[in-house]
Amino acid sequence: MTPSVPDLNPPTRLLCGSGPTNPDPRVLRAMAAPVLGQFDPAFTAIMTEVMDLGRQVFRSRNPRTFPISGTGRAGMEAAIASLVEPGDRVLVANCGRFGDLFVDLAKRYGAQVNQVTAEWGQIIDPAQIEDALRRTPAKIVALVHGETSTGMLQPMMEEIGRICRQHDALLVVDAVVTLGGIPVNVDAWGVDLGSAGTQKCVGCPSGMAPLTYNARAEQAIVSRKTPIISNYFDLAQLQRYWSPERLNHHTLPTSMTYGLREALRLIVEEGLEARWARHQRVGEALKRGLEAMGIQLFGDSAHRLPMITAMMIPEGVPDEAGRARLLEEFGIEVATAFGPLRGRIWRIGTMGYNAELSTVLRVLTALESVLRSFGARVASGAGVEEARRIYGRAAS
Amino acid sequence: MTPSVPDLNPPTRLLCGSGPTNPDPRVLRAMAAPVLGQFDPAFTAIMTEVMDLGRQVFRSRNPRTFPISGTGRAGMEAAIASLVEPGDRVLVANCGRFGDLFVDLAKRYGAQVNQVTAEWGQIIDPAQIEDALRRTPAKIVALVHGETSTGMLQPMMEEIGRICRQHDALLVVDAVVTLGGIPVNVDAWGVDLGSAGTQKCVGCPSGMAPLTYNARAEQAIVSRKTPIISNYFDLAQLQRYWSPERLNHHTLPTSMTYGLREALRLIVEEGLEARWARHQRVGEALKRGLEAMGIQLFGDSAHRLPMITAMMIPEGVPDEAGRARLLEEFGIEVATAFGPLRGRIWRIGTMGYNAELSTVLRVLTALESVLRSFGARVASGAGVEEARRIYGRAAS
Repeated sequence: MTPSVPDLNPPTRLLCGSGPTNPDPRVLRAMAAPVLGQFDPAFTAIMTEVMDLGRQVFRSRNPRTFPISGTGRAGMEAAIASLVEPGDRVLVANCGRFGDLFVDLAKRYGAQVNQVTAEWGQIIDPAQIEDALRRTPAKIVALVHGETSTGMLQPMMEEIGRICRQHDALLVVDAVVTLGGIPVNVDAWGVDLGSAGTQKCVGCPSGMAPLTYNARAEQAIVSRKTPIISNYFDLAQLQRYWSPERLNHHTLPTSMTYGLREALRLIVEEGLEARWARHQRVGEALKRGLEAMGIQLFGDSAHRLPMITAMMIPEGVPDEAGRARLLEEFGIEVATAFGPLRGRIWRIGTMGYNAELSTVLRVLTALESVLRSFGARVASGAGVEEARRIYGRAAS
Repeated sequence: MTPSVPDLNPPTRLLCGSGPTNPDPRVLRAMAAPVLGQFDPAFTAIMTEVMDLGRQVFRSRNPRTFPISGTGRAGMEAAIASLVEPGDRVLVANCGRFGDLFVDLAKRYGAQVNQVTAEWGQIIDPAQIEDALRRTPAKIVALVHGETSTGMLQPMMEEIGRICRQHDALLVVDAVVTLGGIPVNVDAWGVDLGSAGTQKCVGCPSGMAPLTYNARAEQAIVSRKTPIISNYFDLAQLQRYWSPERLNHHTLPTSMTYGLREALRLIVEEGLEARWARHQRVGEALKRGLEAMGIQLFGDSAHRLPMITAMMIPEGVPDEAGRARLLEEFGIEVATAFGPLRGRIWRIGTMGYNAELSTVLRVLTALESVLRSFGARVASGAGVEEARRIYGRAAS
């Protein structure tokens, strides 16, 4: 009998979208390891390692550091579902799509939401947060550290942490795109709860959401007056599962846990500083290379994320057909954009395993070819030359 | 530099607990395939295949057939979160721990919950459901098809479906342990929403939850008067992601999706009837083998699940130390029990890839040795003989 669905055979792509990125092959290999039961001592030891590694990567001593068994969005929802009680005031610092998601989540869980906003492509001034809290205190300030939708990096995190503490607000930070790529200093910044994803700079396939929270956040979770609505995202229960108590909750995704362990292990083995430098350099090479080709970058030039580069689509180049040609002919994925930026920018990710010169050179050469094929004028060879220069390679 | 966390090296276990089971090696291999972006045409084609395969395995024509990006519990929560509005009446048919979970979930989402119950180890009489609905109509009847906690199979599903339709209630069925192991006839039974897991008879690692629902359930979801609270479990959004519309939601767990596709593909390739027969036979061999050894089985003998065998722990054998010896010395995991059954029964899973004679023989011989080591009297060799006989093997 011939099965109607053929053997799985996905093409090999260079994933330079907004995530997932190509995982380190060692991560995929780890995911193929023999499955263990969730209460097997050999598996609970692995859980403990994942917690330890998570603390190193989040730069935190928080005992409550463990992943949610869902994607990055699940981590954000676990935070909001567990911290927000109906009627609580939540201040969202919103300058992009993931700020919008915080607004949506907080409203769904019954919060009274205030927002401080900046145009997409700009960042939030800490003074906006301070002013807003002075006018209307909030229990929670939710903020996106790296706004994938615009390519912007929120600076002055320590200052924002200080403001939140002064106004007795919990600081909840989405570090989905930044963790493992640039400094995420949970303890030093006074982040009360940080959440991330696996499929960006952490370098694992999508499917888990590393989370960390401190005693202030834990206190807010366990001293709620109203019950947590979600069971799956109930941090009060999950923290007892991820502890020597081993409270039975869901069946942890074994293979994803293996992958996350390996990805975090590789980050620690590489060294955080080295990894940040690698992401910084690749982002610089790509941005300077694009500019050398004559392509404009999007957004506030002082606060660009190294791992997501937002480029203006040259005039006359169609968004969908352009990306399709990159994908079909060069095997390279770049990301479209959301809302007001759709059709105006492409977002190019250089994350985790892909944060290296060869990625930049493949992207620049392919872009040059594809943009020209649609009639755009781009300087020939200039991008590659500039990127190689930034990597200290000889011109000839 | 020596990393402080060593290379991943989990031991090889025979997983005969309540799940996860050992996945088919082809599933783990599929999970190591190159990662694709979620809007890559090569990936959306895979999503479509997963939906088609899901319909075949759920025996349903429901267009809305797709997995939730979380474990089996996430599927149950997505169902309840999306169907239940505050104040809605939910009737839970409860005779075990997963019935309790339905009660918990429905209450969390604001339902007025009624229950019809049976003692753990028994099943629900459809007349109980009919009586309860006659007294107090309900919007939803939630029922566990296979109660993993007790090893019981709920019979008369068609009758229950008929009763629910007569009383205009939506029938929501947890088929986490049964899907892929025994008939789950969603359309023929009139199940309005069925949810499952990947790590039991489907034979994939834990981490996704196949779901299917019909037009009645969809109508209830899209015509709600109050918004769905959870974003991650918002089926009204997720069904637009899992459709040609491709509404952007979370980043689908690529590798888990590959694993689920392969697991479903292997089920269809084997043939549902052949797979059910395989599970039936292995369950029979294990149960008869245990009885031949002099071990008592737990619960209603007329309604035992083939894939989960609940055995009474022989007197004098300690629950934890007994299971630990099985695990450490024989590499075999069996499951403890919950609540009133803890310390009284062990649950032995023979699911998916493990549903074959060699599993039974390894379990029976190991059990014989371990139970004896704790001083229990069990008949020597009798279990193996009986199991081999059921598989038609010659006695000598």
